[in-house]
Amino acid sequence: MVLVTSTRLTQTTACNNWGLKKEKVAEKMSNEHFLTMDNLSPAVKNVQYAVRGKVVIRAAEIEKELKNGVSKPFERVIRANIGDCHATGQKPITFLRQVMALCSYPALLDSKEFPEDAKAKARKMLAACAGGSVGSYTDSSGLEAVRKDIAEFIKRRDGGVEANPDNIFLTTGASAGIKIIMEMLLNGPGEKPSGFMIPIPQYPLYSATISEYSSENVGYYLDEDNNWGLDVKELERAYKESLNRCKPRAICIINPGNPTGQVLSLENMKEIIKWAYEKKLFILADEVYQDNVYAEGMKFHSFKKVAYELGEPYSKMEIASFYSTSKGFMGECGARAGYFEVVNMEPNVLAELKKLSSAQLCSSVLGQVCMGTVVDPPKPGEPSYELFIKEKNEVLSGLKEKGRLVTELLNKIEGVKCNPVQGAMYAFPQIKIPQRAIDHAKSLKIEPDMFYCLELIDQTGICVVPGSGFLQRPGTYHFRTTILPPVDQIKSLLAKFEKFHLNFLRQWS
Amino acid sequence: MVLVTSTRLTQTTACNNWGLKKEKVAEKMSNEHFLTMDNLSPAVKNVQYAVRGKVVIRAAEIEKELKNGVSKPFERVIRANIGDCHATGQKPITFLRQVMALCSYPALLDSKEFPEDAKAKARKMLAACAGGSVGSYTDSSGLEAVRKDIAEFIKRRDGGVEANPDNIFLTTGASAGIKIIMEMLLNGPGEKPSGFMIPIPQYPLYSATISEYSSENVGYYLDEDNNWGLDVKELERAYKESLNRCKPRAICIINPGNPTGQVLSLENMKEIIKWAYEKKLFILADEVYQDNVYAEGMKFHSFKKVAYELGEPYSKMEIASFYSTSKGFMGECGARAGYFEVVNMEPNVLAELKKLSSAQLCSSVLGQVCMGTVVDPPKPGEPSYELFIKEKNEVLSGLKEKGRLVTELLNKIEGVKCNPVQGAMYAFPQIKIPQRAIDHAKSLKIEPDMFYCLELIDQTGICVVPGSGFLQRPGTYHFRTTILPPVDQIKSLLAKFEKFHLNFLRQWS
Repeated sequence: MVLVTSTRLTQTTACNNWGLKKEKVAEKMSNEHFLTMDNLSPAVKNVQYAVRGKVVIRAAEIEKELKNGVSKPFERVIRANIGDCHATGQKPITFLRQVMALCSYPALLDSKEFPEDAKAKARKMLAACAGGSVGSYTDSSGLEAVRKDIAEFIKRRDGGVEANPDNIFLTTGASAGIKIIMEMLLNGPGEKPSGFMIPIPQYPLYSATISEYSSENVGYYLDEDNNWGLDVKELERAYKESLNRCKPRAICIINPGNPTGQVLSLENMKEIIKWAYEKKLFILADEVYQDNVYAEGMKFHSFKKVAYELGEPYSKMEIASFYSTSKGFMGECGARAGYFEVVNMEPNVLAELKKLSSAQLCSSVLGQVCMGTVVDPPKPGEPSYELFIKEKNEVLSGLKEKGRLVTELLNKIEGVKCNPVQGAMYAFPQIKIPQRAIDHAKSLKIEPDMFYCLELIDQTGICVVPGSGFLQRPGTYHFRTTILPPVDQIKSLLAKFEKFHLNFLRQWS
Repeated sequence: MVLVTSTRLTQTTACNNWGLKKEKVAEKMSNEHFLTMDNLSPAVKNVQYAVRGKVVIRAAEIEKELKNGVSKPFERVIRANIGDCHATGQKPITFLRQVMALCSYPALLDSKEFPEDAKAKARKMLAACAGGSVGSYTDSSGLEAVRKDIAEFIKRRDGGVEANPDNIFLTTGASAGIKIIMEMLLNGPGEKPSGFMIPIPQYPLYSATISEYSSENVGYYLDEDNNWGLDVKELERAYKESLNRCKPRAICIINPGNPTGQVLSLENMKEIIKWAYEKKLFILADEVYQDNVYAEGMKFHSFKKVAYELGEPYSKMEIASFYSTSKGFMGECGARAGYFEVVNMEPNVLAELKKLSSAQLCSSVLGQVCMGTVVDPPKPGEPSYELFIKEKNEVLSGLKEKGRLVTELLNKIEGVKCNPVQGAMYAFPQIKIPQRAIDHAKSLKIEPDMFYCLELIDQTGICVVPGSGFLQRPGTYHFRTTILPPVDQIKSLLAKFEKFHLNFLRQWS
């Protein structure tokens, strides 16, 4: 997980074959500032966030260059770096947007342009808002009416296991929820730092937050040769190895996986829960891709439900489960809406969580409206039902098809292998990088897959994220690409990619 | 600043004359949990946030009791605890909401129900969004088009001093911006903790964040006898007294003041800047109430502009200025939209700030749309101009009138004195609490003004925040009330309050 910090790279003139902006900061200038790299928070300096890192910064630069008429071997940048559904052409779900528009401008409740069920939903939401306005603050954990609908949604999903609205917190995307739960689990000064068990590869929010909180990363490897499977023996190894440097407090599991796309089996989940119980770990269940399961015969199970069905003592385990409007079939990333449910949290601790979240006031109220509509969509017989189901199914079947296509095309390429995309929105292929390219990258003080991805964007305009940003087994190299672009774009993208890759192999062999 | 933690109070059975819920947590139960009060983050335990604290929790309980038919000496709770404009009856600004609705549901761009300037603004915003959808992520610092409009807004406000869109960050309300800047200023392990100079009284976000970050509160007293004036000698005293426990890194100034409502004079600001330069402090300029100046002859000046006009070296000082859609004339709290501008930040430090904010992805896009519309409102001659100006002026002149009225009525009451509300949205009267009531509160292990405010809400339904939540000079007691309710409600509220207060004085004298 050794990465070059953006600043160091910016200052490395050797790297400017990628056109990275040289910021020659005069010594004198630095002395004039009160806040400098020398007295900036060291924890902040340690934070890395690859999904919006160096390759993405380069993407923005190239887009500006193209706009200014600079000649390139491609016409535009293809952003496959982030699960940003609408940006890659997915259309918003009509019903969600109708409700949001009605809540924004309630004069529209008199308009004939909106179906009655959208109006009814908007009226319910507005009635839940103080002063009947989405411009009011809500409870810090979100509108009670929305939390009740979320509780019903969870109960339906989990085959009748009860959910309590008081245990549900609406958040600014899932990320804000993950951060606040991790914050609760931080050890104090004089203690060993808190350890967070995270998968390798992982979603970079986890490693970034671990750095930000000066806590410790306890990485457990997923088994690439076994469809990114999670082996409890590997959890045990990682746990034991970490004990001299930290006190592990929680295990984070991303299911379906990001960036890996695997879906956990029921049996595997039971093993994980039993193991986590033995180690007294809090379970962080990152379940934001729960709607995105494509593999035949596979099904999403929530950690809450599986723990419940295992019976005591496992049914009493503390779990936080995260969800978001940004993924699934809706892809409403810009709404910055998410929720988490805490299960079995000690009541005094729950009160502390409520206090802590109160200092953030509340999440976006239109985001809450969006979430409330996602968990309580039109029902059969209601005017918007058919369109809603049609739009939802089109997105999900499209993603399934694109996941299959991406895997198939990648695996045809020499020196590339990719596990099936069982779920989520990404492929995470392993790529062969010749030793000479590895040595060259090291001479530039950057990771070999970063070098590879920077070459890729400069030669083709394809923007993907180097595997090192997600962490990976030493000596292996990957990148993450989304499966979001339309089918024709995916095909041309992968044809361009193949040409680049084979050329890269030739050039550096 | 010693406050009773909510948990401790919950467990104090002596307090349950306010109906505080007793949560009898059996020892056994606590042992079954992996996350307990014993291993919860100590920094989290130290956080206090009075604006949504105990009195507000009590308010929610009373509302439920009223709903369930419990008889009370009042019919409803009056929430004067938080600057939540729409919740207290202020109407949204039509133009803002039209643009937000159009961006939510672009099919409305064909509707005749919307004016052309709102449509033009929405088209501009949608063109700035990837894929033409507010459902896409934006740059982590926000849509460039909005940041450009903010830069123009700042330049107009500051009489032509340039603003750079690259120095502007859109945030989830001003709070998220304040927190990220404070985070940048944290010292590392092995160093003295960072000190943040904050006014007393202050807005509780500051003290809460200082606790959360395990940093140190360096409080400087505002002079109540001098209209909450800020004396540089007092800054010097506070600074010097703090040096044995921390390294002061920044000075936070809230102007117009919250909870105090004072507006700084130009001369005073110059003194403060010069003093902060001498101490090498970063300036956190909390300017969210910049539209809310009511006192005759007073004017808002930004710290950026004043520093610029002072010339070098002061014009090179590092400042972060915060703004929000939640206050001003728009009161769009639920949009969770704000921005900050950093001035003179060292370029490598700025890159680190961009990196850190990238892990939060971006703020609500409809919130960004709202902010973009606030800073670039309809112009003379455009179809929405007249309505916009009328709505804006009604809110601001109403607040001015209500500020005057609240002060006047409060000062007529025996044992109450209140400085004029020069700006912002609050009055912060000092109240006399008889010694016997003070002693009684102490026997209950709560602050005397907390006791007073809990009695107030139980007897009248009026919900205000105890001065101790904002910090205050030892031996003085205050509360903060908003000036937001409609004039008739303010009058009846203060009549009820007077009756309560006089009775309280009698009862405890």
